[in-house]
Amino acid sequence: MIFYDCSTAPSPRRARMFIAEKGLTIDTREVSLTKGEQLSPDFLKVHPGATVPVLVTDTGQTLTENIAIAAWLDATHPEPPLMGQTPEEKAEILMWNARIESQLGMAVAEALRNGNPHMKGRALPGPDNFEQIPALAERGLERATLFFDRLDAHLEGRDFVATDGFSLADITAFCFVDFARVVKLRVDDTRPNLKRWYDAMRARPSAAL
Amino acid sequence: MIFYDCSTAPSPRRARMFIAEKGLTIDTREVSLTKGEQLSPDFLKVHPGATVPVLVTDTGQTLTENIAIAAWLDATHPEPPLMGQTPEEKAEILMWNARIESQLGMAVAEALRNGNPHMKGRALPGPDNFEQIPALAERGLERATLFFDRLDAHLEGRDFVATDGFSLADITAFCFVDFARVVKLRVDDTRPNLKRWYDAMRARPSAAL
Repeated sequence: MIFYDCSTAPSPRRARMFIAEKGLTIDTREVSLTKGEQLSPDFLKVHPGATVPVLVTDTGQTLTENIAIAAWLDATHPEPPLMGQTPEEKAEILMWNARIESQLGMAVAEALRNGNPHMKGRALPGPDNFEQIPALAERGLERATLFFDRLDAHLEGRDFVATDGFSLADITAFCFVDFARVVKLRVDDTRPNLKRWYDAMRARPSAAL
Repeated sequence: MIFYDCSTAPSPRRARMFIAEKGLTIDTREVSLTKGEQLSPDFLKVHPGATVPVLVTDTGQTLTENIAIAAWLDATHPEPPLMGQTPEEKAEILMWNARIESQLGMAVAEALRNGNPHMKGRALPGPDNFEQIPALAERGLERATLFFDRLDAHLEGRDFVATDGFSLADITAFCFVDFARVVKLRVDDTRPNLKRWYDAMRARPSAAL
């Protein structure tokens, strides 16, 4: 089994954290997005879509999306369960995971990729080059800020995002909330519920990897 | 159980088609997005996020994302399986589902919402109003067209998107491929594999609903 990772990016961090929370150790290859290694001929043979994370399983199946990697790992390594056990838990975790991806992860990515001079011509991940759209950077930051407020409200009286226990939804939320610092959006005392949850997540060993 | 639907929009169509493929009949309420009913006080009580589909289960759980509705229905009504049975199938289906959402569904939505004069000030779904970004409409159409090409190549020699059988990935792909007509992107003989698959999907009774 081979895990293709990038230590500086939030998407592969989600898979890396999931693997660690499962207590697994998987042969890991670093693909430096800063150096553009995802566009190298060698990596494009692994995944023509030119994104990380990628997990190549022992049977040779190539999984290239976080949700697929998580679902496969949860099905093959059930303990501890990170995607719920009852239909209700499974649905609640996937619902929050999807909300966080579309309303926070996407927004932070839009803000960074369309605003950072180092990402000119690389406004989207993948093999195709797209020019930056400055208005999208502004909108992304606005949306991410709104979602910080909503997550803070949602976390009032809650220890975890989706269910009564730690789950995939917490991993996804933590990785994107933490990464929002790149667009100068930070967790602080103005959002006390978010801060309490964030500090608890950050204290997990899997968050330090 | 109550299913909140909108007969003209692709996202609720995904859930509607999934419900039909499961052979289920669920009490359905139409929420007209054309009339802005998703922003009415009554619907905002159901889902403050102001989107459809929504499924309120018999226990009162409110599921507001396609992936959550599908996962709950598949767990509570296993036949026919639409999200895979082995870990490999489950992962492959979720992988394609995620790719189609981010590379096609998102792209078509960007093209429509940022280009259609009737959607001024409503460039994103949900309770917040965002101005249109014309460059994003152009980029969306370009991305959707690229994905049509990739899906055509992928479907060479295949009857279904993800596995050897019909699945959630086919539903998601069909609803967005079909909806791309709103930005003048249509399936035709220039993409023969896509056309063969599309015609087969369109012939399913669930596609007529």
